[in-house]
Amino acid sequence: MPEATSKIGAHESASAASASFSRAIQDAIDQKTKPLGALGRLESLAAQIAQVQQTLKPTAERCRLTVFAADHGIAQAGVSAFPQEVTRQMLQNFLSGGAAANVMANTLGVEFALVDAGVAGPALRRPGLASVRIDNGTHNSAKRPAMSTAQCRRALREGRAIGGEPGFEAACFGEMGIGNTSSASLVAAKLLGLPVGRLTGRGTGLDDAGLARKRRILEAAAARTPAELDPESALREYGGFETVMLAGAVMGAAEAGKLVLVDGFIATVSALAARRLMPDVAHHLVFAHRSAEPGHDVVLEAMGAQPLLDLQLRLGEGTGALLAWPLVQAAAAMLRDMASFSSAGVSEQP
Amino acid sequence: MPEATSKIGAHESASAASASFSRAIQDAIDQKTKPLGALGRLESLAAQIAQVQQTLKPTAERCRLTVFAADHGIAQAGVSAFPQEVTRQMLQNFLSGGAAANVMANTLGVEFALVDAGVAGPALRRPGLASVRIDNGTHNSAKRPAMSTAQCRRALREGRAIGGEPGFEAACFGEMGIGNTSSASLVAAKLLGLPVGRLTGRGTGLDDAGLARKRRILEAAAARTPAELDPESALREYGGFETVMLAGAVMGAAEAGKLVLVDGFIATVSALAARRLMPDVAHHLVFAHRSAEPGHDVVLEAMGAQPLLDLQLRLGEGTGALLAWPLVQAAAAMLRDMASFSSAGVSEQP
Repeated sequence: MPEATSKIGAHESASAASASFSRAIQDAIDQKTKPLGALGRLESLAAQIAQVQQTLKPTAERCRLTVFAADHGIAQAGVSAFPQEVTRQMLQNFLSGGAAANVMANTLGVEFALVDAGVAGPALRRPGLASVRIDNGTHNSAKRPAMSTAQCRRALREGRAIGGEPGFEAACFGEMGIGNTSSASLVAAKLLGLPVGRLTGRGTGLDDAGLARKRRILEAAAARTPAELDPESALREYGGFETVMLAGAVMGAAEAGKLVLVDGFIATVSALAARRLMPDVAHHLVFAHRSAEPGHDVVLEAMGAQPLLDLQLRLGEGTGALLAWPLVQAAAAMLRDMASFSSAGVSEQP
Repeated sequence: MPEATSKIGAHESASAASASFSRAIQDAIDQKTKPLGALGRLESLAAQIAQVQQTLKPTAERCRLTVFAADHGIAQAGVSAFPQEVTRQMLQNFLSGGAAANVMANTLGVEFALVDAGVAGPALRRPGLASVRIDNGTHNSAKRPAMSTAQCRRALREGRAIGGEPGFEAACFGEMGIGNTSSASLVAAKLLGLPVGRLTGRGTGLDDAGLARKRRILEAAAARTPAELDPESALREYGGFETVMLAGAVMGAAEAGKLVLVDGFIATVSALAARRLMPDVAHHLVFAHRSAEPGHDVVLEAMGAQPLLDLQLRLGEGTGALLAWPLVQAAAAMLRDMASFSSAGVSEQP
C-alpha cells in the first residue's frame, strides 16, 4: 500500500476513535443521576477534561500557579498608574506570601511558584524564587524592539520547560510587571491586526488624562511596525520577558497533557500567542474569567472563548485562573464519581 | 431622660458605629496590595462577610450543605418530567454518596447533611438521614392547600433549628422533590403578586407539550387564592415540606450569624419567603448562581440580587450554592490575610 494511502487510513481510524471517545464521554455524562444537561457548563468542562486526560475517570487533584515577573521598558514612558519599582516590591510581597495570588492559592489548595523572568535591578536570590532572568527588564518598545530574537526564543524555551514540569494536572499562569497591560495591548493588536486603541484600557487604574497619554504612547509604538505580525515578531517587538515565558509555559503544559486555566487580559494574550505557535494548545485552554480590562473581550471573542466566571476582576497574578480551579475539580468529580441511573436504581426521564 | 428619647439616642449611636465599621472594612480592602477595586465582586463579598461576622479578619473554614427532601401532591397532576418515586430513589442516592450534591460537596470540602422532610412512602431509618417528616408528602395544591397552618409552622420551626446548628460559618441549603419547581413557581407568584405563567419553566426537562400542560395546571392552582398572599399563606397553600423547612433554615442560619449561600430558583423562592418573614435575613444572603430555570431571573430581580456565578445550572440539590463556597473562602482570605501597602512596603498609586 502506498505510504500516502496508509497515512490517510491511519488518520481516518484515529478520527473515528476520537469521535467514538467523544460519544462515550457524552453518554457517561448523560447517564449521571440528573436531568439531561442540568449541570450546564460543568458538563462541557467535564467533557474537555476527559478529552485532555483521555479517560472517563478524570482527576483534578493538583494544580500549580506559576507567577512570572519582569519589568518593561515602556513603563518609563508613563503608561501605568504605578511606578516601576512596584514590580520588585511585589516580588518581595509574593515571597512573603502577602499578595492576592498567594492568599488565594493557599485557600484554594493550589501550589504557588514564582519566577523572576527579568525584574529591573540586581538579581534576587531567595528560597521560593526561580531566577530565570532573560535580562534586566525589556527595552522601551515605543522606540525599538522590546527584546532580541534570541531573548524571545530563550524566554519561550524556559517557559516551556517550566510549564512541562510534572506532578500536577492543571496549571494556572499569572504575571506581574508594571507596564504589562500596555505590552499585552500591543502584542494583541499585532496578532489580531487591530488598532491598538481598541485594546487599550486603564490597566491598574489610570485616570482619564493617564488613559489618553497611554493611548498616544501605544499608538506611536504600534506605528513602528506593520499592522499585523507573526507571533514571534509580535512577542519580540512588544512582549515582556514574563509574558513571553508565560506563552512558552502554556505550550509546555499543553505538551505535557495538562489543562491550562487562562487568567485575564494579559495571560489570554500570551495564550493566544501560544495557540498561534502551537495550534494543539487550543484543546487544553480553560478560559477562567472575563476581566474588567476592556481589551479582554476583544481577545476572547477572537479566540471564540466564553469564560467560566465574570467577577469584574482586573488584578492579574493568576487570581482569576485560581478561582476556576474548584470548578474544574467539581466537573472532574462529577464525571468520575457520580452514580448513573442504572447504578443508583433511579428511574430515567421517560 | 424619657424612654423614647433614650431609644432614639441609642439608635443613632448604633447607626454611627455601623457606618464607622463599614468605613473600616472599605479602608482595609483599599489598603491591600492591589489596585483599588481590582478584585471586583470578591471585594463586595468580603465586605459582606466582614459585616456578618463583625470583624476585619473573617473566617470561612466550615460550610455545611443540608439537602431537604419531600414529596408534592401536585406531582400526581403530571407537572414533572420524572415520576414521583424518583424523590425516594434520590434519597437513597444521596445516602450512597452518588448524587451531584454529594460528589461536589466532597470535592469542595463542604459537610453534607440530609433531611427527610416528608418523602412519600414509609419512613426510612438510615445513618446519615435526619427524619423530620412533617407528613407523607403534601396535598395536591391544584385542589386544596398543600399543608395545614400547623404543618407549615412546624416545618418552619424544624428548619430554623436545623439552620441554627453550630459549628460552621456558612450554610448551603438544597432541595429534592419531584414537583417542587411547580410548587416554587406558585409560591413565588403569590409572594410577588405576579401571574404564575411568568415564573413557569421546564423544571427538570419538560418538552413543549409537558410545559403547556404544566402551565394549565399551575394557572388553575393559582386561581384558587388571591393574586398576592402573605408569606405564611403562600407557603401553606403551595409550598412543600422541604422548601418550607428550607425557608426556616435560612432564618435559623441568619439568626445564628451565618452566611447563607443561596442556590437556584427553588432555594431562592424559599429565601424570599424567609426574608419576608424576617427582614434581617437579607444581610446574610449570598446569591450563588443564576439558574437556567427562567423564573429565577424574575425572583432575583425582585430581590435586587446579582448572583456570583452563571454556569447554566438547573439541578438544585444545592449544587450552585456549593460552587460559590470557594469564592466566599477566597474573599474572606483576601481581607484576612493579604498584606497592606504599608505592611509590605509596596508603593501606593500616587
